[in-house]
Amino acid sequence: MPRWEPDARQRLVAAALHLFSERGYDETTVAEIADRAGLTKSTFFRYFPDKRDVLAAGQETLSRLFVEGISQAPADATPLNAVAAGLERAASAMRPFNRELAPHLQAAIAASSELQERAALKQVGMAAAMADALRARGVPDSVAGLAAELGVLAFRDAYATWAQAGNEEDFAELARVALERLRATASQLLA
Amino acid sequence: MPRWEPDARQRLVAAALHLFSERGYDETTVAEIADRAGLTKSTFFRYFPDKRDVLAAGQETLSRLFVEGISQAPADATPLNAVAAGLERAASAMRPFNRELAPHLQAAIAASSELQERAALKQVGMAAAMADALRARGVPDSVAGLAAELGVLAFRDAYATWAQAGNEEDFAELARVALERLRATASQLLA
Repeated sequence: MPRWEPDARQRLVAAALHLFSERGYDETTVAEIADRAGLTKSTFFRYFPDKRDVLAAGQETLSRLFVEGISQAPADATPLNAVAAGLERAASAMRPFNRELAPHLQAAIAASSELQERAALKQVGMAAAMADALRARGVPDSVAGLAAELGVLAFRDAYATWAQAGNEEDFAELARVALERLRATASQLLA
Repeated sequence: MPRWEPDARQRLVAAALHLFSERGYDETTVAEIADRAGLTKSTFFRYFPDKRDVLAAGQETLSRLFVEGISQAPADATPLNAVAAGLERAASAMRPFNRELAPHLQAAIAASSELQERAALKQVGMAAAMADALRARGVPDSVAGLAAELGVLAFRDAYATWAQAGNEEDFAELARVALERLRATASQLLA
């Protein structure tokens, strides 16, 4: 009997991303992922309904953290400051494991139109989650929508820098800077 | 020999959207689309490589029009005014044919995660096209990116209203109003 593997999920994610970036998402099978991770196919299916879902887990976590951070921001926080609180909370999910895999994730997405579609949908989903959390604070609909879009742009900017080889900056700090820069850009745009 | 069908493409698009909304995107075959349009499968394949591409043609047209409108805006136009020019040009593609099909398109997207992913990717593609056209005018990278996002949000808002049953407003006017509203919302957000 195999011993309980506390890190089986992470091993499966790492194996999948390495294989996706090496040989392409379409060409990679669940059997190969399990094999690379040193696990069985049935172990894979204990964690993920199918190959697509290897990439979905992170999104749910991020959306949940955005919502928590936004909901728990001080009552008098402006919409953008609530978004900043959501980004800060989400930063707690951006661990060394995710950073190490980021280049593989980016390479896999760049090579697969299916993964590009999923990444685009992920952004829409994150924006919707943030906007819902802002509306729940009483932020008017249109303001909530735009603040959430800025939040996703800031997240995306921060991720791009954080994922660069050699970068050692803190994700939370990168996200703060990115949101500030967007705020300045927006002021310039409206001037 | 069948006669030349000048509107075969439109008939195929209309047939496809009706079938997608009636029975679902996945459940609809090319043979059924051709049949509903009163055409043959081989005619379908003269216009579209496959079922997915029925929905892609509109996006390419829109992106091309955004780019034309932005490129041809007066040299001294602000980035947001160049985006407004792009939206106005794109409005020329929003014809009664598209408006009539809009509820079917929306129903089909609402019922299919694959079409939701494609719609999300379409928005990303439109934003990228607008941002490229703005950068070509010398607009700095970050300003171009944000102005393009506002352009896509304005397009989406205008489309949602334009597609409502009974609405008879002009698309160009709706897009102008939507962009103005976003500008006001952004000012409020930054205040």
